[in-house]
Amino acid sequence: MSRPIVVDNVVALRAQIRAWRQDGLRIAMVPTMGALHDGHISLVRIALEKADRCLVSIFVNPTQFAPTEDLDKYPRQLARDLERLAEAGAHLAFTPDVAGMYPTGFATKISVGGPSSGLESDFRPSFFDGVATVVAKLFLQALPDYAIFGEKDYQQLCVVRQLCRDLDLPVQIIGAPTVRDAHGLAMSSRNAYLGEAELEVARKLNAILRRTATALAAGADEAGATDEAGRALVEAGFQRVDYIAARENLTLAPWRSGRDGRLLAAAWLGKTRLIDNVEIPSA
Amino acid sequence: MSRPIVVDNVVALRAQIRAWRQDGLRIAMVPTMGALHDGHISLVRIALEKADRCLVSIFVNPTQFAPTEDLDKYPRQLARDLERLAEAGAHLAFTPDVAGMYPTGFATKISVGGPSSGLESDFRPSFFDGVATVVAKLFLQALPDYAIFGEKDYQQLCVVRQLCRDLDLPVQIIGAPTVRDAHGLAMSSRNAYLGEAELEVARKLNAILRRTATALAAGADEAGATDEAGRALVEAGFQRVDYIAARENLTLAPWRSGRDGRLLAAAWLGKTRLIDNVEIPSA
Repeated sequence: MSRPIVVDNVVALRAQIRAWRQDGLRIAMVPTMGALHDGHISLVRIALEKADRCLVSIFVNPTQFAPTEDLDKYPRQLARDLERLAEAGAHLAFTPDVAGMYPTGFATKISVGGPSSGLESDFRPSFFDGVATVVAKLFLQALPDYAIFGEKDYQQLCVVRQLCRDLDLPVQIIGAPTVRDAHGLAMSSRNAYLGEAELEVARKLNAILRRTATALAAGADEAGATDEAGRALVEAGFQRVDYIAARENLTLAPWRSGRDGRLLAAAWLGKTRLIDNVEIPSA
Repeated sequence: MSRPIVVDNVVALRAQIRAWRQDGLRIAMVPTMGALHDGHISLVRIALEKADRCLVSIFVNPTQFAPTEDLDKYPRQLARDLERLAEAGAHLAFTPDVAGMYPTGFATKISVGGPSSGLESDFRPSFFDGVATVVAKLFLQALPDYAIFGEKDYQQLCVVRQLCRDLDLPVQIIGAPTVRDAHGLAMSSRNAYLGEAELEVARKLNAILRRTATALAAGADEAGATDEAGRALVEAGFQRVDYIAARENLTLAPWRSGRDGRLLAAAWLGKTRLIDNVEIPSA
């Protein structure tokens, strides 16, 4: 088990990447905000299958948090993250700081339309601008061949694909299945906020989504099925449901019955906001 | 005199660039909207001094024109442009079409703050979003080592520098001095719109700017000097002055007397809008 190289600036990052390129090695990147869990480690594994070198960025990106959100309390645990990356066999951890990523005078924003509209954007209006801008920047710093994103943040995955297609970013995006605990709960750094009783409730989210997706695939009325799912979440113990919505698989346009789709949801448990999504298989 | 390779799609462009890279060649790009004049050719010359291969893109970018502007009548003369590029020794002309650059579903916009505020933006509010987005896209299609931009479009040059710095675009931007006719008129594709009498008037723009910059450098009051310059332009025959403003050299923040600065102006001659700018030397 060898520890990853740790670099915190673009010059050092590019020097290492240039050296790898000169050796003809293929590079895969896993952008993260740290607080690594089994979901992230599954992305590293996919990166290592696709490429010769795996680079993991760890950066809690302030521009994707609203002032009311959990930027300050978002879990930071670099030493433990580096241990997990060493176990997983990642080759490099890129750990820039905020001043390095957004120096004084920074003034550029990337807005991706299409799949960014609705869902998360209805509740976090600047979120995807922050994501698109930092992802483009990380990609341009490293210029990897591949980048791996979890399907857990399904809308984000669609937005990143659109970003790369629209700007001709020369990075191939790979979506990876959500990793779940034995009860179906999607791995998330924010699960660390949950107490035992809340965890019990959280574990019901995925089952309710799966049941609803099965009903939709079998022809159930969309509005009725999602309303029922919303009520089921509240009965299960969620305080508030931001959305439950069926969407087309890639564009996230409104879903049409009989097509491949995705059922996406966000709901609140105390002060913690959880998201999840499941496939709606085509008829 | 060998003719440039002409490619109209990203796959072919990247194949040629990959071949050059494999030969260890350095690549400089000159992004243009065609209708090439001596100003563009001077950029090609600088590209050939800096790098082994010069790539010129020719694309009249619709997203930087407002609906009221001259997109439809903007001069298009590809055969003549290719002849000029052959004479100048450019190696490749990249001539994408609108559907190739902005396929159905295209939905991404890059906004650069800082130097984009005011001046042109006061009169062409979406102009720099269009410029930043297409320039980023062209850079990502080609990934050149250098890109050459004329100082004629001085605010654009500052915006492109800011774009590259903010997004870590791995392209070095080189600004090139404005090429002028014997009477000081800056070369511009839009000069083609001017009749003989209008050309006579247009030629006075640069002299008035130079005179005003000299006065500012010598300590003249800024508001008084620029007001006087505006009156002089109207007396010379310009119908309307959009702006005459002194700005800091790089940030385009308000200029402070005694510092390096730039005096920038835009004015109308009939239906043609001309821009120009000159240095304000520091005291």
